[in-house]
Amino acid sequence: MFESAELGHKISKEFWKKEVPGVREGLLDAQLDLFQAKKFPVIILVAGVDCAGKGETVNLLNEWMDPRHIETHALRDLTDEELERPQMYRYWRVLPPRGKVGVFIGTWYSVPLVENVYGTIKNAELDQQLERIIRFEKMLCDEGALVLKFWLHLSRDEQKKRLKLLEKDSSTRWRVTDTDWDHYKKYDKFHKVSERMLRSTSTAESPWTIVEGTDPRYRYLTIGKAILAAMRQRLDAPEPTCHVEPIPPILPTIDNLLILQTLDMSKKLKKAEFERELEKYQGKLNLLTRHPDFKKLSVVVVFEGNDAAGKGGSIRRITQALDARQYRVIPVASPTEEERAQPYMWRFWRNIPRKSRFAIFDRSWYGRVLVERVEGYCEHKDWIRAYGEINDFEEQMVRNKTVVVKFWLSITKAEQLKRFKEREKIGFKRYKITEDDWRNREKWDEYELAVCDMIDRTSTEIAPWTLVEANDKYYARIKVLKTLCDHIEKALGK
Amino acid sequence: MFESAELGHKISKEFWKKEVPGVREGLLDAQLDLFQAKKFPVIILVAGVDCAGKGETVNLLNEWMDPRHIETHALRDLTDEELERPQMYRYWRVLPPRGKVGVFIGTWYSVPLVENVYGTIKNAELDQQLERIIRFEKMLCDEGALVLKFWLHLSRDEQKKRLKLLEKDSSTRWRVTDTDWDHYKKYDKFHKVSERMLRSTSTAESPWTIVEGTDPRYRYLTIGKAILAAMRQRLDAPEPTCHVEPIPPILPTIDNLLILQTLDMSKKLKKAEFERELEKYQGKLNLLTRHPDFKKLSVVVVFEGNDAAGKGGSIRRITQALDARQYRVIPVASPTEEERAQPYMWRFWRNIPRKSRFAIFDRSWYGRVLVERVEGYCEHKDWIRAYGEINDFEEQMVRNKTVVVKFWLSITKAEQLKRFKEREKIGFKRYKITEDDWRNREKWDEYELAVCDMIDRTSTEIAPWTLVEANDKYYARIKVLKTLCDHIEKALGK
Repeated sequence: MFESAELGHKISKEFWKKEVPGVREGLLDAQLDLFQAKKFPVIILVAGVDCAGKGETVNLLNEWMDPRHIETHALRDLTDEELERPQMYRYWRVLPPRGKVGVFIGTWYSVPLVENVYGTIKNAELDQQLERIIRFEKMLCDEGALVLKFWLHLSRDEQKKRLKLLEKDSSTRWRVTDTDWDHYKKYDKFHKVSERMLRSTSTAESPWTIVEGTDPRYRYLTIGKAILAAMRQRLDAPEPTCHVEPIPPILPTIDNLLILQTLDMSKKLKKAEFERELEKYQGKLNLLTRHPDFKKLSVVVVFEGNDAAGKGGSIRRITQALDARQYRVIPVASPTEEERAQPYMWRFWRNIPRKSRFAIFDRSWYGRVLVERVEGYCEHKDWIRAYGEINDFEEQMVRNKTVVVKFWLSITKAEQLKRFKEREKIGFKRYKITEDDWRNREKWDEYELAVCDMIDRTSTEIAPWTLVEANDKYYARIKVLKTLCDHIEKALGK
Repeated sequence: MFESAELGHKISKEFWKKEVPGVREGLLDAQLDLFQAKKFPVIILVAGVDCAGKGETVNLLNEWMDPRHIETHALRDLTDEELERPQMYRYWRVLPPRGKVGVFIGTWYSVPLVENVYGTIKNAELDQQLERIIRFEKMLCDEGALVLKFWLHLSRDEQKKRLKLLEKDSSTRWRVTDTDWDHYKKYDKFHKVSERMLRSTSTAESPWTIVEGTDPRYRYLTIGKAILAAMRQRLDAPEPTCHVEPIPPILPTIDNLLILQTLDMSKKLKKAEFERELEKYQGKLNLLTRHPDFKKLSVVVVFEGNDAAGKGGSIRRITQALDARQYRVIPVASPTEEERAQPYMWRFWRNIPRKSRFAIFDRSWYGRVLVERVEGYCEHKDWIRAYGEINDFEEQMVRNKTVVVKFWLSITKAEQLKRFKEREKIGFKRYKITEDDWRNREKWDEYELAVCDMIDRTSTEIAPWTLVEANDKYYARIKVLKTLCDHIEKALGK
């Protein structure tokens, strides 16, 4: 795999002088076009062997390009705000928006690589982590990002030479640490694991480019030209005028039996019983949040449901039991301008709570496979891939000890009509029924199908859906509270 | 000052039952109007004596109001990301946008109060801090925020009773800490300092409301009604149709002698000399950033100047000397939607760098007193107050060991014409001259006046302007680099 990068690639000073001006002009040009069209972001990863010139390369790129539209991010120590969130949070928060270039040095590959070489994680775990990275990068590409990955390679001898050279010069000696020599001693192991890593993560959408790091001029020019070519090609590509629709993988069940229809919608609670249970479970929830181990957890609650199913009321019964300082309710409406310039999931990543806090989503990332699917706000391929992205997102939260609890509040079509009419009668503005509500209602069957697909495809063992029979508000609210308590209790290992 | 809050205010259960539904309905209504009109944010501070029921009050407010449009923030330990920025950063980053309600418990008053009571800061320093708070709150009000401040008071006896009561009950014992008793022993001192604090920060725009904390029903209802009345009044107020223009405080100098005209615009450097100096100062800058004490600093560089004065070129000469991982260039263009929903300075606060990093602003917060003033994009009163807000902003950065370096790149009208024409000839798109450029040029004299006012009003000892004679690019770039080095050197105490 690295053979071609040990040939001693080199270019002459003359060739360099002749080529560089064109590349620089081209890059500046491409950047300006990118910035003006704001069609996609460019994400550049610079990884590779120690001392192969990653830092210098990135510095040169910054020199060549317009520093106003490029930003470089280095993997350094995690801040405590990052430490309390899933691993990929630190990358999500600095993703370049459409129109900009983000350069990552010390990337999401570094940790798994080093940990495997040093034996902290086994091969199986490495493969799992690489699988996650592949899915993450695929999501970026699906969202339109241009992802360019460069691996700077040095042969064993060359790396040793480089280290010695740096050590000899008093002005660069500080750069060579014990870790560097330690890594060098493990060169063969690094070589082997890197190869495995590069092979399995070189996908059609974002292949690796391996570059020999020995000769700086060769290295700079190769990477510069590769970036230019990729940006230019994408910028100049005509808008795809047609594309092949994927085969609809989702078919209605032949016998028309849907999971939602299996709910017993007659379930109810008497008022007295409701009040007793409410006190019981609100008290319990409050106690749970004061458990010493609760500091290690965070809680994400998702509310989806039919219009007028009582999401707001259920949310209030939860927040009543909590200290106002420890929760945020996030009403999900149309994305803001900054959110629209990012991948779909970005606006949910930015709302992931810190430890010992709650984030309660009033509608959520499931909008993609519900309203956006049914109303045609996004393309078929986009909501189809969303199922996988959503599962990945929730898996990352759960691995970070976030309790993810998802509720679908279900009411019957007749009950919804009753509530709509009641609300119209009260005429109280915060319950105003809009035309949207009536329109959604007309698509009842389509929504029902979408909900059932959603449940089938995203009710996972780690983050299952709880279907709530919500024709009776008392029953629904208690079921929500009790379920939430159960999940937190389980996470506390009680 | 606290006399009326020691009268034993109390309301009956009947009165409470009669009044509460109306207040709750009213608050929900006001919140919805606020959210739909998105005209202003509501900022509620809940402060006061320990055990006076701050937490309970905030929890009840959250219960009464729609949790989707209210968010509560508590002063807890600073995260390391907050620690590296000026004191008020933690508040700026969570200010509610227009249309939302933000509740702060443990506010910007807590630290100065406690520190003065415990003698960590003297009265003079307390007064200074309160002055800063007054200016901060005034800015919020000027930006349209509704700022409501509540102080919950308890008499000495009442506080003691409360502490004993909490200690007796095993379910609340955990809430009473040694600090609480320690504070209680200092009741008189707290009383005195609080009074001083409340007196001096009760301004016309945001007065304090002192509420007796003894009877929960009285306390809740008083605060609920006060919030409702203030929100309702502001929501129902007609848009001001006319307002009195302030007397123009800025007059052109009678003899027409302006600071910009005192520059010697013939200053220049030969190419050879430029290259020598460039190497020298870029090397020096790079070394300075590797000084061990540089970890304690951060650097903010501001570039303003005439169109075509060479801001981009100067910025590139700085970034060339830096590691790409340690700087960000922030090109300032029109604010995004999220930024427009916040006070003017918000989008600059969010870009304050961490320790040992650079933030380089290509145009900046000075836009308010330059283009916005001249083109009439904001009202007279808004740019007039901006001078003070800018000075406050820079002072906070400097107190946090940020080196603030501000450059005005000045070229003559003739030189600008030459550059515009050259750019048109090259026809290279990134130098495209737009109609805006020509239009700005027509207002040359107005801009010149605005620049001179800006320099007079914001060139402070802690953050002075450096005027750069930029007709000669070589000379300008070296002056910029050398000045930047000087400032950092000084901050390092070298």
